[in-house]
Order: sequence, then structure tokens, then C-alpha cells
Amino acid sequence: MSLTDSSPLEVAKAASISSRNLAILSTEARNDALTAIHGALQETKDIILAANAKDLELATKAAEEGELSQSVLKRLDLGRKGKWEDMLQGILDVRDLEDPVNKITLRTRLDDGLELQRFTCPIGVLLIIFEARPEVIANIASLAIKSGNAAVLKGGKETTLSFRAISTTISNALTNTLVPNASIQLVTARDVIASLLDLDKHIDLVIPRGSNELVRYIKDNTRIPVLGHADGICSTYIHKDADPEMAVKILVDAKLGYPAACNAVETLLVDEAALSTILPAVASALLEKGVSLRCDAESKSALAASLPKNESTILQDATEEDYTTEFLAPILAIKTIPTPPDASASTSCSLAIAHINAHSSKHTDAILTSSPEIANQFQSGVDSACVFWNTSTRMADGMRFGFGTEVGISTNKIHARGPVGLEGLMIYKYRINGCGQVAGDYGEGGKRWRHERLPLDG
Amino acid sequence: MSLTDSSPLEVAKAASISSRNLAILSTEARNDALTAIHGALQETKDIILAANAKDLELATKAAEEGELSQSVLKRLDLGRKGKWEDMLQGILDVRDLEDPVNKITLRTRLDDGLELQRFTCPIGVLLIIFEARPEVIANIASLAIKSGNAAVLKGGKETTLSFRAISTTISNALTNTLVPNASIQLVTARDVIASLLDLDKHIDLVIPRGSNELVRYIKDNTRIPVLGHADGICSTYIHKDADPEMAVKILVDAKLGYPAACNAVETLLVDEAALSTILPAVASALLEKGVSLRCDAESKSALAASLPKNESTILQDATEEDYTTEFLAPILAIKTIPTPPDASASTSCSLAIAHINAHSSKHTDAILTSSPEIANQFQSGVDSACVFWNTSTRMADGMRFGFGTEVGISTNKIHARGPVGLEGLMIYKYRINGCGQVAGDYGEGGKRWRHERLPLDG
Repeated sequence: MSLTDSSPLEVAKAASISSRNLAILSTEARNDALTAIHGALQETKDIILAANAKDLELATKAAEEGELSQSVLKRLDLGRKGKWEDMLQGILDVRDLEDPVNKITLRTRLDDGLELQRFTCPIGVLLIIFEARPEVIANIASLAIKSGNAAVLKGGKETTLSFRAISTTISNALTNTLVPNASIQLVTARDVIASLLDLDKHIDLVIPRGSNELVRYIKDNTRIPVLGHADGICSTYIHKDADPEMAVKILVDAKLGYPAACNAVETLLVDEAALSTILPAVASALLEKGVSLRCDAESKSALAASLPKNESTILQDATEEDYTTEFLAPILAIKTIPTPPDASASTSCSLAIAHINAHSSKHTDAILTSSPEIANQFQSGVDSACVFWNTSTRMADGMRFGFGTEVGISTNKIHARGPVGLEGLMIYKYRINGCGQVAGDYGEGGKRWRHERLPLDG
Repeated sequence: MSLTDSSPLEVAKAASISSRNLAILSTEARNDALTAIHGALQETKDIILAANAKDLELATKAAEEGELSQSVLKRLDLGRKGKWEDMLQGILDVRDLEDPVNKITLRTRLDDGLELQRFTCPIGVLLIIFEARPEVIANIASLAIKSGNAAVLKGGKETTLSFRAISTTISNALTNTLVPNASIQLVTARDVIASLLDLDKHIDLVIPRGSNELVRYIKDNTRIPVLGHADGICSTYIHKDADPEMAVKILVDAKLGYPAACNAVETLLVDEAALSTILPAVASALLEKGVSLRCDAESKSALAASLPKNESTILQDATEEDYTTEFLAPILAIKTIPTPPDASASTSCSLAIAHINAHSSKHTDAILTSSPEIANQFQSGVDSACVFWNTSTRMADGMRFGFGTEVGISTNKIHARGPVGLEGLMIYKYRINGCGQVAGDYGEGGKRWRHERLPLDG
């Protein structure tokens, strides 16, 4: 890992060259590097935490002067209980995942002695732009090395000293491994994000790790593909036949498990036929835990009729904007889905689907229903990365999915969608192994293709 | 299929809505639409060919006035032998491919009664920008419908009448099917490409079908992901132990099979140790067939020493630029790869890899060698979509790969790379089917995840 004041172009070129050497290293060589990084971080814990303490000191001053938010301050602190240990364990966890490189995903016998194979391979050079979490360096360095990708890192200015200390440790650790030092570079020069985003010739993928504003800025200012999401406007639809107790449990988790998370629910859609049967208990439970409910007219009047006065008086009115807002706070927008006059259950679900497809950020949406058919209709019709049935939107997470690690959650429509594990850092290449066959041998009047699928482990 | 003068925004919005209806149609419904289009085109053959004849007449005039190239003129002609039949057969071929929609690609038991599933699904809305090939409409309409994607088509102005005739036929055919009419829209308004490229909120993927200039313009002017390639700068490296006869056969095919194709070879790299043993026969064969050879000093002097005078005098000098040029013509740039002083065979291959990684367009590169180890080193080290051993670069083709159809060839580093079949028009979504489990149930002090891989066909 280099700590570099080089120009963005020099950094990106060095990354590109290193990526090719990194891509052909054995599984063992890449894993050994992770072991070495883990050991070196353990040894330099005191130095790094001392640097982090200085960052914290400066940041606390900035926070006192109102230049930094308390939440950023909290994220800076590597000394918080369990954080250091989690960071170190994360490196070993990534090391112990299955190697994603060089897996055969297609084999076809094109003709005798002419075999097509598709191999997974690293994408190349990743650019990671992140804000104030110092542990991200160790995490990204692990993911990049494991997946055979080079990474250029650009972090927030509030954690410069921590970043430098961690980088120095990682750099020293890599010196004794086969992983090229410039595979992982930390850019320390200021105001270089725009120049980095311009280097689409050398950088293959940008992964932003930070606020919605950061992600949006990046998406708007680069031709390099961006993996991630800006908003997480997740909704849950309560169909009339949902289990009321389950609805309460799921909505409390989805809204309050971690309100600032991208997979928290922001909009509750309620079947008109469930307004007085299921919604009241859900609303009561949420109000009791301090959630502000922003209701449309129908849901508000239904709740007013069934809730005790101390609860119904604190109901708020929803605006149209609330249905496209990621509150990141204990606020929930509620909207009624009318039951069409012919009372066809599927049509009420269709309206919920239409609302979601028009308003959601294609991240995660859920339905609560006891009907498998209605659930299937919803899960087929909603165009989001995650479409859940009878569970919380908070399930949208790489660790919960069993991926072992999470690169991020993507709302892109190509490449990787939803929680992204190591697989999202891979692409593939095609090999053909022949013995002199040429394209002109085949076709009209010539030889015929065999095009025979072969087993992948053959 | 609509033929529309609506604004680009209206078109894209209509496509987006249609895409959701199209995405949930059954395999049968989508296949039936392709059968209907095929039948309708058969019935209206005369009308379409008459419209095409008028386009041709206008284009011939334009060509005579020097406003249109002869090659464009040639591509316009739907009446050319076999073209109409190929277009119609292509629709049936696409129809008969395996349905790429709704395939389960991952199943994990997260916990009892809590199952994660990953399903393939269409990307959404495709924008296809193409030049003067009228048959592209039928081809793209088939691919889009088969894959469940809506498509907005914008064609070159030279074939307006043919496009309109084909569109009308397809539109009428779709009326009696379940495929929404606005799933396939032909934009006929002029000068709208820039506005279409700006609609990243509604369009998910751009597929350019045309000249390198068109592709480059599109890549430079949109935030929508682009699937395709601008250049195809393919190279072939002759290692010293290559079979000379095989080298001649392969290079003649790679250079002359179809010199204007993106998978034609443009650069020949020759191991210094093969300059007098293998290169002369290859050069002779190519010169004999009218190929211009642009040589570096070493290869030129080696050839001058071994070729008859009538051949050696027509050798040209290569410039640096020749090694990054896609000639699209019977021209080949030749460069010598020095044998390092310690004569290690692998190092000479490494230099070839380094040249390719620095100069190629990451499309297709091949090695000719009798050593499996050297071949493997080359195929691992070259960062291109296709890396071939002992065969022609011309093999890089979706039909030859057995994909049944080809959406295009991609040099992207994410999503789809190399020849792209229907799979490249798909993304996926995650479903979780639960029964009331929530994220807060798991983790510290709570339940443990099972994370059990399940068989895909269960």
C-alpha cells in the first residue's frame, strides 16, 4: 500500500499496472497478504489508535465550533468498544471466503479440440471514495486483495492521521508479500476527487462509501461505472390478509432497527381493507416508540377513529414529497391503497406495485400477506433489487444474505444489484483453446459447430 | 411497436411503464409475439421491400452526389440475396432460445422458513441507436421481447421508409398479442439522440450498433451504461515454438476473413526467435493476398533477408500509431518482441502481454504456441474479453460461441464482456420469503443464521 502525493493520473496508472500483477497471483499469495496485514495491524495498534485520538481531538474541536456533526465524530472513533477488534476480524473473515478468482462458469465444446471456457477475473482498478470511517481502509484493502483488484482510496479529511497510520502499516506489511505495493494506494492530496473521477481510461469502477450527497455527486460527475446507491426509499405494503401481529413486529424492526440505514422502511402502504383491522396496532406500536407518522387523509381518519386520543392527536399529514423521501429518522409516511370497486384482491396489490415502481429507489420493498399468489404477484411486479415477503426490509444486507462480506448495496440495473459481495468485484474473460481451427472452416459448405455444453468441473 | 413522434421523454416514460408489464409475461406470451411478428413480416414483404427500394433510390442519389458511402448503400439493401430470409429466420431462432427470464441462480436457507432466492429479470428499458441496417429493427425487437426488455429504437435517417414500414407491420402484429405496443418504439423525430442520451432516469442501457465514431460519441455523451465497443484492436502473438503452418492458416483467416469486422487481427507480435523461422511464410501468404504489412525495423530486415525481392520491396514501415489503429482493412502492423538475453521463454511472452495490455482495446487477443504453460501465462495475463490459444481472433462471435444470437461485443469491464448473448440483457432480483422473521431476531444473544446453500432446482 502506498501513501501517495502523486498526481491522480500517476496513481491510476500505477494501480492499473499493479492490477495486472495482482490478478495473476495465486489464492495463497493473496490470502497470505491478508494474514500479514492482520498481523501488522495488531502490532501497530497503539500507534494507530494514538493517531486516531489526534484526529478525534481536532474533530471534537471542529464539532464544538459547529463545523462537524456529532454523527461524523462518532464514526471517526476507532477506539470505540469492539470497533478495532471487528476491523481486524473482518480481514480474516474476508481471507477465509472462497476465492472468487479463476472460477470456470461456462464450458462449451465448439468442435473437436476447440473448447470455449469462461473464467471469472478481477475487474481491474477500483476507486473507493469514502467519508470519515477509518476502518474502511482495512476493509477495502482486504476486499480488493482477495478479489485481485487494485484499489485507489480517497478518504475524508477528518481522519487523515488515522488513514496515514493505517496505510503505513499496511504498506510495510505488503512489502514482504507477493502483492504489489501499489495495488492499494491512499491518495492524500487534497481536492483531487474531480480529477480521479475523470480517469475512466485507468479506473474501472467507483465505489462510494458515504452520504447520499457524496454518492449523488459522484454519479453525476463521472463516466466510470459507479457501484452503490444514493437513496434507500424502501416501502412495505400491508395487504388486507396480512397477519396483524406479524405486521407489528416487522414494521417495528423495519423502521426502528436502525433508522439511519438505507434498508429502513420509509413508506408504509396500507390496503384500504386493512385500515381498521391491521393498521391501528402497527401505528400504536410505532407511535409508542416515538415514530412520527405522516398519514394521507384516509389512513389518518381511520386511525383517528380507532386510536386513543393521546395517539391520534399526534398524527401528521403527509405531503406528496414524503413518499419520495428517505427520512433516515423515526418518521414513516403512510399511504392508503384503495380497494377497487370489484374487490379483486390482485388489483389492490397492482396499485401498490404501481406506487412503488413510481416512487421507490429500487432498493428494497416488502409485502405482508398470507397469500402466496399475492406475494408472487408483488415480487414479480416490483422492480427493485430486493422484493421480500413477510419479513423486514432490514434483511437486505450482505452479511444477512450469507455473502460473508458486503461491498455495498447497489440500485444499479446492470452488473450487480442489491447487497453486493465479492462476486460484484468480478468480471470474466473467455478463453478458447484450439489447435489451428479458424472461423473460415465453419459455415456454408464447411464444418459444423458442435456447441456442446460441458460440465464445469471437467 | 409504436412509431412515434412523441418527445423523447414521453417515449422513455411509456417504455418504462411497458417494460414492467412485459417483464411479467409468460415465456409463451413473449414467444407468441415473436411468432406473430414473423408471420406479419412474411405477409407484408412486398410493402416493406417497396419502401426499402425507395430508400435505396434516395440513397443512391446521395451516394452519387458523394453524400453517402458505397458501404452504407450496400447495408441499406434489404433485397440483397438472403437478407430478408435471414432476418425472418433470426426472429424464429431468438424465439426458440431458452427463456432467460426468471431463472433461479441462487438459493440459500437463511433460517427455518426464511429462504433467499435470486431470480434473473430483465434490465428494463434499452435504447438502441443504430445506423443504416433496416434489419436491425426486427433483430432488436426479437431480442428485447424475448428478454422481457422494452426498447426504444433510433435509426439512421437513410432508412426512414424501410423503418416505418417494418415498424407498422410489427406494431400491427403486436396488437393481437399480450406484449404491450409501447414495449418497442421507433423514434422518428430528428436530432433527438442527445435528448435520449440524457434520460438516465428512464433508460437503463444503451446499445449502439454502428461505426466506432457513433459508439464513441454515445459513450462520451451519456450517463446511461453503454454496452458495446468502440475499437476492436486485436492482436496475435507468435511464440517461437508455434506451428508454422498453423500460423499461416490462422493469420490469413484472422486478417482476411472479414477485414472490416471488429474481431479481425490488426497487430501481429512476433517473438524475435520466430522472425526467420515462422514469420516469412506468414508474411508471404498475407502479401500474396494483398495485405499491406507495416513492419518495425527488426521484422522488416528479417523479412527482407528471407522473402523474394518482389515481396520484400513492398514492405512498409510501421509507426507507433499503427499499433493502436484499427485498420478495418487489409493492413497488418507487425512488431518484434525481443527475446531477453537470458533466453527465458516466459519473459518473451511477458513482453507480448505487456504490449497488448498497453495497446489493445481489450477485445480479443490470441497466442500461437505449442506450450500449454506459455498459453496459460498469456491467457491469464492479457486483460481482454477474449484470450485465445491456437485459433483465430475471428472466433470472438456470439454465434460461434454457441449463444444463438449476439447483442453485440462488449469491451466493458463490468456487467457483460466479450460476445454478449441474451444473458447480457438480464439482471436479477433477490426475493426473501419469510414468515415474520426480522433482522433484530438475529445477532448478539439472538438466533443464528443457517446460511445453507440449497439446490437451484429444489
